[in-house]
Amino acid sequence: MITYTIPVDLAHHAYPVYIGEGIYHNDSLLKKHIHGTQVLILSNNTLAPLYLEKLQQALSDFQCDVVLLPDGEQHKNLQNWETVINTLAEKHHHRDSTLVNLGGGVIGDMGGFAAGCYQRGIPFIQIPTTLLAQVDASIGGKTAINHPAGKNLVGVFNQPQCVIIDTLCLKTLPEREFRAGLAEIVKAALILDGTFFEWIEKNYQALLTRQKEELSFAIASACTIKKDIVTQDEKESGVRMLLNLGHTFGHAIENSLGYGKWLHGEAVAVGLVLASRLSLKRQQTTASDHNRIEALLKNLELPTQLPQNLSLNTLIEHMKMDKKVKRGKMRFVLLNAIGSASLFDDITDDALEQL
Amino acid sequence: MITYTIPVDLAHHAYPVYIGEGIYHNDSLLKKHIHGTQVLILSNNTLAPLYLEKLQQALSDFQCDVVLLPDGEQHKNLQNWETVINTLAEKHHHRDSTLVNLGGGVIGDMGGFAAGCYQRGIPFIQIPTTLLAQVDASIGGKTAINHPAGKNLVGVFNQPQCVIIDTLCLKTLPEREFRAGLAEIVKAALILDGTFFEWIEKNYQALLTRQKEELSFAIASACTIKKDIVTQDEKESGVRMLLNLGHTFGHAIENSLGYGKWLHGEAVAVGLVLASRLSLKRQQTTASDHNRIEALLKNLELPTQLPQNLSLNTLIEHMKMDKKVKRGKMRFVLLNAIGSASLFDDITDDALEQL
Repeated sequence: MITYTIPVDLAHHAYPVYIGEGIYHNDSLLKKHIHGTQVLILSNNTLAPLYLEKLQQALSDFQCDVVLLPDGEQHKNLQNWETVINTLAEKHHHRDSTLVNLGGGVIGDMGGFAAGCYQRGIPFIQIPTTLLAQVDASIGGKTAINHPAGKNLVGVFNQPQCVIIDTLCLKTLPEREFRAGLAEIVKAALILDGTFFEWIEKNYQALLTRQKEELSFAIASACTIKKDIVTQDEKESGVRMLLNLGHTFGHAIENSLGYGKWLHGEAVAVGLVLASRLSLKRQQTTASDHNRIEALLKNLELPTQLPQNLSLNTLIEHMKMDKKVKRGKMRFVLLNAIGSASLFDDITDDALEQL
Repeated sequence: MITYTIPVDLAHHAYPVYIGEGIYHNDSLLKKHIHGTQVLILSNNTLAPLYLEKLQQALSDFQCDVVLLPDGEQHKNLQNWETVINTLAEKHHHRDSTLVNLGGGVIGDMGGFAAGCYQRGIPFIQIPTTLLAQVDASIGGKTAINHPAGKNLVGVFNQPQCVIIDTLCLKTLPEREFRAGLAEIVKAALILDGTFFEWIEKNYQALLTRQKEELSFAIASACTIKKDIVTQDEKESGVRMLLNLGHTFGHAIENSLGYGKWLHGEAVAVGLVLASRLSLKRQQTTASDHNRIEALLKNLELPTQLPQNLSLNTLIEHMKMDKKVKRGKMRFVLLNAIGSASLFDDITDDALEQL
């Protein structure tokens, strides 16, 4: 059953985000968004035994090919992207074929990028199966693969036909991955919606225990925030950069540790604490705000400190290579208050080292 | 000196096409279209000794890196695309860096695709140095690399900041490549402009001897036709398909022979004759029209017959895999008259074999 439908109305493309339970294999929903006769399902070896069969059944009216990749961020690379492209070519997929991405951010990002390039773009559907992908990666059209020189360094902006968010898929999600997704929900609230932040403070236990109703509401709220921002600035030339709150630190943590050691959401959680602390040092926010943020992330059982083997200095070095550096200046998204963030490009190394 | 400026006004991006002599190293022209502090010039080993130094001088105010690739269609592949991406990453190019593509269709297509994907898109400038690239590949934003399963199978739509067409660069262009470019000019006239076709019939000798004034006029006319079509249909969902006149046959010839045996424009010339003959068989055009087309291509010293070692049947097999096949039907752009083309999707194998 679909409980929320969030319309994403971009300048040149509009699509719905469906949120519900047991909807990923709803054949009429899928068919509404497939216009050719061919589909290719992209998924991974962990998810396939759980969800693939039902999805294939729902798509049995189509030429339905499948590519299964190994699970994990380290596989979001050019080689696997090429595997998707090669399969589309070998199975003679035409320009109106639809790629169906069943998986987390790795599958969605890589599949979206492959769909963006095969025959200069074929349609695709996102079925995000992790909480992180549901509230973040699957909306907004950022697709990419990782490169030895940086995460998401190669990709395109590419919008799906629809996003199908099924809370059923969260039931099999490992605890650590689930909590990592909560970090992005907190981030969304911090950027734009203080009232939603308060709601999370009150309902964190229901979220941690994956109560269907609270979970759907939190996902819908985070998706709405993301949608509001993305529709204002699809290509990230302005307000969309706010979504990077905690991410300059977060990406640097992931890069420094090596992909896959920490989950993206875990790195973002620490990134949010560091961004909050920097906001506090610059007297933009209050100590009370900072304490609430740190307390909520702790309640959600997320890390709030850098790993012991990683110094802030090493982190700063990594951040200089990060793509959010513009013309040599360090840019950061910082908080003005809980529910309000802005972009600052006057951050010096000194300010960072004082952290 | 700039003799023509053709504005390309797309829905979300507008850019000029400059045509002139000695303008590729005009620093003020270049700077007008570069907004960051970094550029990367992509070119090949044949062109570099001729043109690179002056271009580098014109760009001496910028961090200016260079990637030189081997010359030839067989190098328009994923590996070289990756070389461009890797260099951008290694040299720390940011999101506002500009890629400057100095070369023919291979450089322009591959560079445009790399610019489209690095950091999810950086700006780029096209400086097409072959006649073919000047009148066709550099306008319209189609970028791609070849794939073992097909030409231009992987790419994106990506529009440049500007196109700088310098007739000076044509002076060093080998005879065979120059004539191949004339085929695309004839194609443009056939699709949309019967008067221009007549002009070519009258001025073919001036074109063959590369008279500056006639050449500039022909380039400007072909670019204007292409621009008119592309602005109506950027993503090739309708009228833009008309630009494929002669190309379904042409691509199949290239695929059948293997890349690089025949030049693209040579394959298109034969493709135009076959498309014209099919139009005649279907009684859409007159024998007189067909004869004029064949005669003009012969006057321009272009091939008008399939190579001896290639049968039409082999060609048809190849065309079925071609990406212009939609839902299993064979689609062709055919002529209604000289200066008027339409898309037909009712072409059967029988009709083809009767050729």
